[in-house]
Amino acid sequence: MNQGGTMQIDELDAWWRAANYLSVGQIYLRDNPLLRRPLRREDVKERLLGHWGTTPGLNFIYAHLNRVISDHGQEMLFITGPGHGGPANVANAWLEGTYTETYSHVGRDEAGLKELFKQFSYPGGIPSHAAPETPGSINEGGELGYSLAHAYGAVFDNPDLIAACVIGDGEAETGPLAASWHSNSFLDAKHDGAVLPILHLNGYKIANPTVLSRMPEAQLEQLMRGYGYKPHFVTVTDPHATEQAHQDFAAALDTCLAGIREVQASARQEPRTGADYAPWPMIVLRSPKGWTGPATVDGKQVEGTWRAHQVPLSGVHDDDAHLHQLEEWMRSYRPEELFAEDGTLRNEVAAQAPPGDLRMSATPYANGGRLLQDLKLPAYGDHAVVVDKPGLEKVSPMLTAGGYLRDIIQLNPENFRLFGPDETASNRLQDVYEVTDKAWQQRIDDVDEHLARSGRVLEVLSEHLCQGWLEGYLLTGRHGVFNCYEAFVHIVDSMFNQHAKWLKVHQDLPWRQPIASLNYMLSSHVWQQDHNGFSHQDPGFIDHVVNKKADVIRVYLPPDANTMLAVTEHCLQTRDRVNVIVTGKQPTMTWLGPEEARLHVERGIGVWDFAGSEDPRGGEDPDVVLGCAGDVPTVEVVAAARLLKDALPALKVRVVNVVDLMRLQDESGHPHGLPARDFDTLFTLDRPVIFAYHGYPWLIHRLTYRRTNHDNIHVRGYKEEGTTTTPFDMAMLNQIDRYQLAMDVIDRVPSLRSTQAGLRQHLQDERQRAWQYTRDFGKDIDAVTGWMLEEASPDDAT
Amino acid sequence: MNQGGTMQIDELDAWWRAANYLSVGQIYLRDNPLLRRPLRREDVKERLLGHWGTTPGLNFIYAHLNRVISDHGQEMLFITGPGHGGPANVANAWLEGTYTETYSHVGRDEAGLKELFKQFSYPGGIPSHAAPETPGSINEGGELGYSLAHAYGAVFDNPDLIAACVIGDGEAETGPLAASWHSNSFLDAKHDGAVLPILHLNGYKIANPTVLSRMPEAQLEQLMRGYGYKPHFVTVTDPHATEQAHQDFAAALDTCLAGIREVQASARQEPRTGADYAPWPMIVLRSPKGWTGPATVDGKQVEGTWRAHQVPLSGVHDDDAHLHQLEEWMRSYRPEELFAEDGTLRNEVAAQAPPGDLRMSATPYANGGRLLQDLKLPAYGDHAVVVDKPGLEKVSPMLTAGGYLRDIIQLNPENFRLFGPDETASNRLQDVYEVTDKAWQQRIDDVDEHLARSGRVLEVLSEHLCQGWLEGYLLTGRHGVFNCYEAFVHIVDSMFNQHAKWLKVHQDLPWRQPIASLNYMLSSHVWQQDHNGFSHQDPGFIDHVVNKKADVIRVYLPPDANTMLAVTEHCLQTRDRVNVIVTGKQPTMTWLGPEEARLHVERGIGVWDFAGSEDPRGGEDPDVVLGCAGDVPTVEVVAAARLLKDALPALKVRVVNVVDLMRLQDESGHPHGLPARDFDTLFTLDRPVIFAYHGYPWLIHRLTYRRTNHDNIHVRGYKEEGTTTTPFDMAMLNQIDRYQLAMDVIDRVPSLRSTQAGLRQHLQDERQRAWQYTRDFGKDIDAVTGWMLEEASPDDAT
Repeated sequence: MNQGGTMQIDELDAWWRAANYLSVGQIYLRDNPLLRRPLRREDVKERLLGHWGTTPGLNFIYAHLNRVISDHGQEMLFITGPGHGGPANVANAWLEGTYTETYSHVGRDEAGLKELFKQFSYPGGIPSHAAPETPGSINEGGELGYSLAHAYGAVFDNPDLIAACVIGDGEAETGPLAASWHSNSFLDAKHDGAVLPILHLNGYKIANPTVLSRMPEAQLEQLMRGYGYKPHFVTVTDPHATEQAHQDFAAALDTCLAGIREVQASARQEPRTGADYAPWPMIVLRSPKGWTGPATVDGKQVEGTWRAHQVPLSGVHDDDAHLHQLEEWMRSYRPEELFAEDGTLRNEVAAQAPPGDLRMSATPYANGGRLLQDLKLPAYGDHAVVVDKPGLEKVSPMLTAGGYLRDIIQLNPENFRLFGPDETASNRLQDVYEVTDKAWQQRIDDVDEHLARSGRVLEVLSEHLCQGWLEGYLLTGRHGVFNCYEAFVHIVDSMFNQHAKWLKVHQDLPWRQPIASLNYMLSSHVWQQDHNGFSHQDPGFIDHVVNKKADVIRVYLPPDANTMLAVTEHCLQTRDRVNVIVTGKQPTMTWLGPEEARLHVERGIGVWDFAGSEDPRGGEDPDVVLGCAGDVPTVEVVAAARLLKDALPALKVRVVNVVDLMRLQDESGHPHGLPARDFDTLFTLDRPVIFAYHGYPWLIHRLTYRRTNHDNIHVRGYKEEGTTTTPFDMAMLNQIDRYQLAMDVIDRVPSLRSTQAGLRQHLQDERQRAWQYTRDFGKDIDAVTGWMLEEASPDDAT
Repeated sequence: MNQGGTMQIDELDAWWRAANYLSVGQIYLRDNPLLRRPLRREDVKERLLGHWGTTPGLNFIYAHLNRVISDHGQEMLFITGPGHGGPANVANAWLEGTYTETYSHVGRDEAGLKELFKQFSYPGGIPSHAAPETPGSINEGGELGYSLAHAYGAVFDNPDLIAACVIGDGEAETGPLAASWHSNSFLDAKHDGAVLPILHLNGYKIANPTVLSRMPEAQLEQLMRGYGYKPHFVTVTDPHATEQAHQDFAAALDTCLAGIREVQASARQEPRTGADYAPWPMIVLRSPKGWTGPATVDGKQVEGTWRAHQVPLSGVHDDDAHLHQLEEWMRSYRPEELFAEDGTLRNEVAAQAPPGDLRMSATPYANGGRLLQDLKLPAYGDHAVVVDKPGLEKVSPMLTAGGYLRDIIQLNPENFRLFGPDETASNRLQDVYEVTDKAWQQRIDDVDEHLARSGRVLEVLSEHLCQGWLEGYLLTGRHGVFNCYEAFVHIVDSMFNQHAKWLKVHQDLPWRQPIASLNYMLSSHVWQQDHNGFSHQDPGFIDHVVNKKADVIRVYLPPDANTMLAVTEHCLQTRDRVNVIVTGKQPTMTWLGPEEARLHVERGIGVWDFAGSEDPRGGEDPDVVLGCAGDVPTVEVVAAARLLKDALPALKVRVVNVVDLMRLQDESGHPHGLPARDFDTLFTLDRPVIFAYHGYPWLIHRLTYRRTNHDNIHVRGYKEEGTTTTPFDMAMLNQIDRYQLAMDVIDRVPSLRSTQAGLRQHLQDERQRAWQYTRDFGKDIDAVTGWMLEEASPDDAT
């Protein structure tokens, strides 16, 4: 223990006892919070739903971290990995005063304590996990596995910050956590802060021992060294030897802090010296599950076993012995030494809290909106492409976005990061490497390109890490984009769920400031998987996303380069959302000029007069509406409209493109929902609508089922047919190709159905011919239908 | 190298060269497969979509494994972890003759070679990943991270089998793979087979070096030892020193095989001796990416760098030098020594293949249906519960299933496993522990319960491992169930995708025999998360699942104990499907007697006369239909019907319960789809339908949108409102509670809307009162509405 420290073991222990007392109180009591009278059954909650097991260890760690924060003025963020650790965070926040500052109805007196206890894990109260409601938390403790990735994300570009990340040994069995240890290969000791992992070996999960706690200690040490850390073991063998435990842990903490300083000092001097990749210190704390709780209950060992996981004394309502044991347990913390008569915390305990924002429950890093700076955006016009005629030239939407992101990175050198699972170049965002590198702390060889110790791009072959790092980065007040193959973003479905749920709750908490949105750029999508085939074809992430609260989620399907640019510009300015952007990486036809595109994105949906064949000034309904959403469906719809125009010049076809998918929903269903009148104007009240959609077709039905004309909407989309084949064959297999769409029009427009059997057969034949051509030679459909490029008339454009 | 081995280095090298030659040919050639004439541009495919980088290493390993298979008669399964490793599997399968046996159009001669080359990564051909189409594969190489979990799943209960699992160093960065190393804590050396992990350090992913390849070797060794393995390093520093590489790898393989035998011998003698947990041997093979390919192209290093990832010579169509270099490259394998004039493999090479089913491309373990035995099922009647009156008693559906699974385990001691993420008891399946234990190879303490070296239950806090192990277990011809909290099964969304895609392709391959279905038992569901709150509330897995092919997926929502039993019995007999079963773990009312339940499950949907108030013999349509799917919605619907019956005795209410969700879809959409006539009979042509559904409500619209009466279907379900609260409050928050449903009836039945404003207000008041009661005291709604239990009349039952 640092001899110059201001906090002594006794005071530290008093804090710990106070936190433990408050934790037990939360689990059990609805009255008599200070035990002024002997505990009675009616003081106890009717249902006991909390969890005790992990909490005393968390409280222990928290108390010790406070000491080093106070001693060194160190900025620290506390991340609670273990499940059901909520009571600890809440107890410490109350002790630090933050809880009352945040929730004034939970005062710092006896009435406040009663309220604090009662609300916990109670209907309408607060969760038993660290959650958005918990001051000082950026990590939901319900779904396990993401604490360490969040911790790394939080310290990127925060060189003065240390994230103390408690990892439960249950959580440590998850895949995402197992991968997260390797985050140290991506953390730049010079420009980033530090993570102090504290692996907390309680020994048990719900019902089983944990792998890491039962392996021989020598093996565990090898594992941690293999992960690139220098572990410091603190082992509590005798639960009663708390003074020894305090001394051991304090010493380990001091050693780790010194170790962190050493790694940082070495990296921060010029020129950098030392190894490529210094092992970072970490702590392995082995302490009994349910430490300081009942050693045995009804003759069975509880402390130190899985039986301490939930509520160690469950019979308090019916069993006087249990009730008595609970009272003894609570009194063992000597509340009279901790709380004054009125329930306020005694000064000598309260004084152990760090000052102001250094309190981990009050740190602005855990309420990132307080630190958020707007991104400086490049000029849109510098990146937009010139479009002389719609459908004349081909540009990759992702490549266009890449140039824009390059400039974002240049303008915001410490406030923005690009995350991806080894796919940033594959997704055509490689222009970013003109101004930055990929951060990499392992050996760099001469043959490597764009690798450096510092860099704005993080690439690791783990979608979980990309997502977890980005969440940590956003929740601490910065901006970022996650680019990913569309099919494999499903790997983080569940992480998305938890982040969307976090945002929903966060939005309703007035003290939580808005944070930057989580932006997905999904490419290498379902329609462009020529060589990867079926395993890479899955557009279902959109379906997954739209199950979450409308306030939180947005889905954009830019059909070309300029719309992609405008969508990107928009999304990077939004707050508290998840924006899903799906577009192609292959060059695709440009349809809209710079300002048209921006307007189209602002509207989210619109008629493309250049593609249709109605008189835009006519004021009459068309014969048929062709809707499209997505880059490939848009090409097919425009081409279908052209086929129809050539064959049936009198037919009035309207083409409606949807870039903001939520515009399809009604106003009551989504904030971006198009008013009924506008929707009806676009899609008519009664004309057939053939809608070509990027993903699974039923989503369009779901979004539009309350619309007047819904029964006439016929949707084509991906129906899980795929293989290793050409993009055009993919369109054919799923019946979203231009010929099929044109035939659909004939089938759905009554006046054509009876008269155009010949044309239909001709289209069928042409379809077969095109398929044969593209399939035999691996050629693109454009080679068949060169007319689209050559003959597009400038007069058509609007 | 085993001196008694029959295969010499020269022969082994010839096999390797042959496999490499065939791999390059697959990537490049559409003609001239034997290089009978100098290579011309027209011999080369128009689009070059294959990947070379990982393939020569895979071929190298495969050749060496063949040696030990032949030497020892060892049964081996080859698992290809690295992405785009398909050419290697295909090449070796052709060399072993299996490819031709499986696909007769790809003969063992020059024409066959041409076909073999052309089909690869070509429209309508075969994928570049190991895939269902690939003989000898159980692992799709497209989405990375699951190879090692599949390998462990494959060897459970196959004591004589070794799964040689090649893990790419890219794949090794994923979370699921990182967690998979710990599978050795669950593998019983006595009754299970062995996994031989071969970590293949090619050094690069698509565009980046890999973490494991760049860390210092001493650190990597610590990591592997920390994971519980004894690594044997084979490092190829000089790509030309192939003889040395052969000798080193052969020696390492012999050492590992001996090591496996040693661990097994120790575990298989009685009494067991030795350490709890012996380190298993494994190999770290460091070899150049694109080994034996072009060392440099256009002056840039290719072999040994990420540039070898895809197609090393991409300019062959336009650049004579590239074309020439390709020819040189292919000729470097000396095809004239490998193939006879007619393109058949020379005998001395062909003779290196192991015999018959020992060929890894022909092993029945990779075509598990060949090994599949039907499960022996316990008597249904022994587990069904007596139901004197519907809604009289409460039984936990999961507990009932647990008893059934217990007997399954007893009847099928080596053919069935139960997988779960530390939740088997929490999900109320604990009766299985009466007959088995949880397999666990780490230390076992006195305080532990139901832990043993051998056991039918596998519990690890990783949904990824549960899913991966089960997939491996099923694909090798066994049966199993994965029990999981409903919300967190989203963690394996993407793994489900890949398995469902695998099954779709597998079903169309006549040589692949049907395998047992993958059964999910999801509990601790959205409506019963009193203390876990919002993070644990997510019923969206069903939505995710129904996006996959109808042939493959089934969703069951058993409303009570007997229906759960009947669903379980059914699902365990199905093949080639994914069955999703969602039901509660809390005691819930029993509605149907044993035979009624079985019939109801067989029909999948039906009218519950006891709950409704129409005359079952009346033949007239009811005034309103109340539909329900899910245990909680069913209780609420029955209660709502009762409220209406009491208040409006003349109202004719029909209650329809749906247990097989796919019955809602029309016949053309799903094999289980109800014919239109039957649906219309149940739900009428024009009466209002109030449907209470377990999950997100729009799914019911999606499934029924083609139904005649769809416009009158009004769905209540989970709308992403939740928190830490009582089950009844959850129902209220999402407006699926009995009072709301009864009010919905008043709102939707025209004759009531105008006349029953008073009743509606009364229901509204009762609703508020019930809420207040349950919320204030944490009491269950049943306490309010005890009449449901007390007054249910036996005469109502059918």
